[in-house]
Amino acid sequence: MIARLCIIGVGLIGGSLARALRQASAVGEIVGCSRDAAHLQRAVDLGVIDRFETDAAKAVRGADMVFVAVPLGAMRALFAAIAPVLDDGAVVTDGGSAKGRVVADLIDAVGSTPAWFVPGHPIAGTERSGVEASFAALYRDRRVILTPLAETSAAAVRRVREMWEMAGATVNEMAVAHHDEVLAATSHLPHVLAFALVESLARMDEQREIFAYAAGGFADFTRIASGDPVMWRDICLANGPAILSMIDRFGQDVASLARAIEAGDGERLLALFRDAKAARDAFTG
Amino acid sequence: MIARLCIIGVGLIGGSLARALRQASAVGEIVGCSRDAAHLQRAVDLGVIDRFETDAAKAVRGADMVFVAVPLGAMRALFAAIAPVLDDGAVVTDGGSAKGRVVADLIDAVGSTPAWFVPGHPIAGTERSGVEASFAALYRDRRVILTPLAETSAAAVRRVREMWEMAGATVNEMAVAHHDEVLAATSHLPHVLAFALVESLARMDEQREIFAYAAGGFADFTRIASGDPVMWRDICLANGPAILSMIDRFGQDVASLARAIEAGDGERLLALFRDAKAARDAFTG
Repeated sequence: MIARLCIIGVGLIGGSLARALRQASAVGEIVGCSRDAAHLQRAVDLGVIDRFETDAAKAVRGADMVFVAVPLGAMRALFAAIAPVLDDGAVVTDGGSAKGRVVADLIDAVGSTPAWFVPGHPIAGTERSGVEASFAALYRDRRVILTPLAETSAAAVRRVREMWEMAGATVNEMAVAHHDEVLAATSHLPHVLAFALVESLARMDEQREIFAYAAGGFADFTRIASGDPVMWRDICLANGPAILSMIDRFGQDVASLARAIEAGDGERLLALFRDAKAARDAFTG
Repeated sequence: MIARLCIIGVGLIGGSLARALRQASAVGEIVGCSRDAAHLQRAVDLGVIDRFETDAAKAVRGADMVFVAVPLGAMRALFAAIAPVLDDGAVVTDGGSAKGRVVADLIDAVGSTPAWFVPGHPIAGTERSGVEASFAALYRDRRVILTPLAETSAAAVRRVREMWEMAGATVNEMAVAHHDEVLAATSHLPHVLAFALVESLARMDEQREIFAYAAGGFADFTRIASGDPVMWRDICLANGPAILSMIDRFGQDVASLARAIEAGDGERLLALFRDAKAARDAFTG
């Protein structure tokens, strides 16, 4: 049970956690924080948060759990603002998609790796954003990855784990660098490819015609290119090396496939497409 | 009104056309043809076709409209088999995704470009295949591209156009080569990328773990990698040059994006992602 939860960044991710914990009766009071009072008032009106502050240092006072769901680019300043004023025993966790960068920002901001911070990442989302898009079931049957460091308090990890489990998620732990590689493969690379494909097509002369002839498969394939551009810029900047390494690996695989097309190697193409279909059909996400 | 429609290849594409025309009362008798009698009997049991032949030369006799929906690799032999026995006045059209190859196969098989053949391509489908997956609404509000040649009878084009309109589709005409470029961009390239991405990830050591952490966006992005491997092999072989040219163009765009990531050029990334999101959001397919 969380007595007072402070959610900094009340959008799809933060708002959905608030709704889920409220629905599970796992939280007393929920305090929202962002820089936009009108937006926060909407979150109050929607019943997502109980009250709000626009100053993070005020918002975290008295909270026993703080969830940071701001863009990656805003994390460092936020850590610097809240670290000196946190209550004793307060636990802080986040939802950032690139843990190496979050941890580096934290160390930058507070000068050390504090016991009270549990780096985390819920593997959930939709292409929509904002508190209006939030819903209580977002994390149900989804995974949350925690990447605690040597200095992280085991009790803090346990409390964050319990919070996500109350929200319906399954929690796993892994090392920071491994998280960043796995996410580069399963999320960051696909998003980069989808953005790049839509951009490639949009820049072709006949663009209006081209999109007119795109069908359902194209819609599915490019849906993730409707994601928040600021968030994806931040992710690309924050997890650059792992994303570049995946782009390189993928580029080699596409080049090999192109060579098979060029050579008219039907046997090779069929084997590759069969393997991929089997792997995709086995994936039930 | 079609008195007797012969559908060669009774799967998702052929079966859905049969269902749509039946529902629109636009067809008298529907004769199905493939090499698999058990499969054809299932199509009869499902009410998709009225009767069947496993010999294409027998199946087309008496038909005033023939729809060829076999894999691209099977077209040439089929044209050779049916051309000598078609009824006077019969019109033949197809659903192949690479028109240059279909036309080349036709000329190869019959020695000329006959007036009775109208190259066509319905831009519709799902990742499922087979007559069990067929449904009457597949073509509703979808586009069908016809690529008639100089020798094609205008009356034949009109009859094929009317058939697709009765099935609920909008019909456009364009040149063969242009069709193949547009489809390489909107369909063939995305499929190749989805197959390649799933294959890349499946070959990474931690594959089970990687797929375990993939979320909804990944599912959308790779759904088309569940397509029929034989069909996609044939398409890659049939439209190779246009697909290779798109792979090359896309590769350059990804390389440019990778350079922006490497340089930490947030401004450039944001502009690119914003443009792509705007183009994707404007696309309502």
